[in-house]
Amino acid sequence: MSWMRRALQLAALGEGRTSPNPMVGAVVLDAGGTLVGEGFHARAGEPHAEVGALGQAGERARGGTLVVSLEPCCHHGRTPPCSEAVIAAGISRVVVAMTDPDPRVAGAGLARLRAAGLEVIEGVARDEALLLNRAFVHRVHNGRSLGILKWAMSLDGRTALPNGSSQWISGPAARTWVHRLRARCDAVIVGGGTVRADDPLLTSRGMRVPEPLRVVLSRRLVLPTAARLWDTVAAPTLVAHGPEAPLAARAQLDAMGVERLELAACEPDNLASALAGRGCNLVLWECGASLAAAAIRQCSVQQLAAVIAPKLLGGHVARTALGDLGLDQVDQAGLWQELRLERLDRDLVWELRAPHRAEG
Amino acid sequence: MSWMRRALQLAALGEGRTSPNPMVGAVVLDAGGTLVGEGFHARAGEPHAEVGALGQAGERARGGTLVVSLEPCCHHGRTPPCSEAVIAAGISRVVVAMTDPDPRVAGAGLARLRAAGLEVIEGVARDEALLLNRAFVHRVHNGRSLGILKWAMSLDGRTALPNGSSQWISGPAARTWVHRLRARCDAVIVGGGTVRADDPLLTSRGMRVPEPLRVVLSRRLVLPTAARLWDTVAAPTLVAHGPEAPLAARAQLDAMGVERLELAACEPDNLASALAGRGCNLVLWECGASLAAAAIRQCSVQQLAAVIAPKLLGGHVARTALGDLGLDQVDQAGLWQELRLERLDRDLVWELRAPHRAEG
Repeated sequence: MSWMRRALQLAALGEGRTSPNPMVGAVVLDAGGTLVGEGFHARAGEPHAEVGALGQAGERARGGTLVVSLEPCCHHGRTPPCSEAVIAAGISRVVVAMTDPDPRVAGAGLARLRAAGLEVIEGVARDEALLLNRAFVHRVHNGRSLGILKWAMSLDGRTALPNGSSQWISGPAARTWVHRLRARCDAVIVGGGTVRADDPLLTSRGMRVPEPLRVVLSRRLVLPTAARLWDTVAAPTLVAHGPEAPLAARAQLDAMGVERLELAACEPDNLASALAGRGCNLVLWECGASLAAAAIRQCSVQQLAAVIAPKLLGGHVARTALGDLGLDQVDQAGLWQELRLERLDRDLVWELRAPHRAEG
Repeated sequence: MSWMRRALQLAALGEGRTSPNPMVGAVVLDAGGTLVGEGFHARAGEPHAEVGALGQAGERARGGTLVVSLEPCCHHGRTPPCSEAVIAAGISRVVVAMTDPDPRVAGAGLARLRAAGLEVIEGVARDEALLLNRAFVHRVHNGRSLGILKWAMSLDGRTALPNGSSQWISGPAARTWVHRLRARCDAVIVGGGTVRADDPLLTSRGMRVPEPLRVVLSRRLVLPTAARLWDTVAAPTLVAHGPEAPLAARAQLDAMGVERLELAACEPDNLASALAGRGCNLVLWECGASLAAAAIRQCSVQQLAAVIAPKLLGGHVARTALGDLGLDQVDQAGLWQELRLERLDRDLVWELRAPHRAEG
């Protein structure tokens, strides 16, 4: 079990860089149980975790054990099948945390190993492995990116003053935390309203290379002609819109060299599907109240990250994180499940996952 | 220092029952430093902490040390002056955490002890002692009760759905916690709107005997004729109103036997002053958004207790804990200082004190 923990630690080193692939870590022990190799999947297109670990182990892998957080693949993708490499290395026993939900693998990798006479042990630390790769699993099962909805609010639940002023509700430590959160994500999504109101940059400030894809969801492309998002040298930007977007507005974006995508309907679910199609496992919704509520209603949000500042903003009119969810009674609201509660200076960050296992 | 910690622990045993007096704990050590007596102030009108501890110690107090969380009193109140009892018991040395801010004492108790030849050491664990008795100190210095504003909200900052439905946002553990909070307070305050909308009971469910005073602040006494608060057998109720309250409405309350108080102006500060006059050190504001905001603007709130439930309520219109605070810019909002962060089942309770030391 402790070697699987190490494999999961190694896997997590690839966080934010492996999509569309999962994070995978591997450990090789020789026949006597001594550690002789470690590896992790560092980036899509680069070698899989098993290959790195087996390469380190070399001849010492013969008769040994491979401990790997995900079932070795058995198909030719951008790299050759790992199952064959494992067999060729002379490994006797393979311990895996979970099978690969990718329909091209889905147990066939383990079957291949067993057929070659290797002992295979499955399900060690399976829950931890599923949690680590929940975005990948969600995308494979649902054809949608897994969504995190993030907002910062005052203790009285405001995301802005009635006059729109919102800088800064949270402190510097929480804002840096948001940059780190973006670095874990493949895309960051806002609506047109946020572009108009805040002109955000939406980067990880260099914590992720390349920067996550910045996505604007804008039905009719009512967008400013100048915006920091239109400078795509620092980070890529994609503007997704509905079929109703005027041709002139489309042409303007095209002229600026900003990538554009017409969705069949300008809805969060369509976007989550389109982004999954582009290989995004995990996306961050940093949008305003209406789009956030729509994303929740359409089950495009599986996780919340609320930054709560110890401030009171007040106001006759309240600007909050969410628009209408269609509830009539309080007991219709499900209980979100805590993932993490953290203090960042004076602020709190509360991360939770959806009440119903919308993923998996 | 550790004996003072014990004295402070003892003091806290009187929490919620000593008003208008402070909480006080005392420890007596004999000449050899052995513990020979402990006492605390259990309730206004009952013996002071020193008297109980000296009584336990008896002759063993002679030549010994008294460790007490507050300066011994030197005036005849409902009980005789403690300074004289300390001298009479033959104590050689007195260690106190803080002087008594009561103008009838205010250092004169310690002066009396010094004049009688006792060694006096002041200021041991002073900050802890001030924190414990901050409500008493606040009342004595400002002639106002110290106010805690409490609310329960969803993670998106709602205290109710747009249709007013609000039961229950928090879970059973948090609701029990609120009963305990009420038990620490001398009065619980709501506005007329809360009586009309929720018909609350506002008791500690027997955790405090007697129950805290239930207070309704209602400018014009537009109140329902039937309400659980009008049953004053279980707990006392006081209705405070403005000079503009119609005579007929006053007469109706009088006929129901509910206590009534006309304020010079129907404002939170006037109420905090009136309640201080009735000996309330600590009061709990459990009111709606408008009254809560008014109480904050008038500095009647020194502490917050926000219960945050891991639920999303949403809504085009947001009912939140606070009305207008008159802010134009986010940086005008002060940072409240954390006192405690607690998990109650799935809910969070965050307790904070005012950014500016409005008390003390």
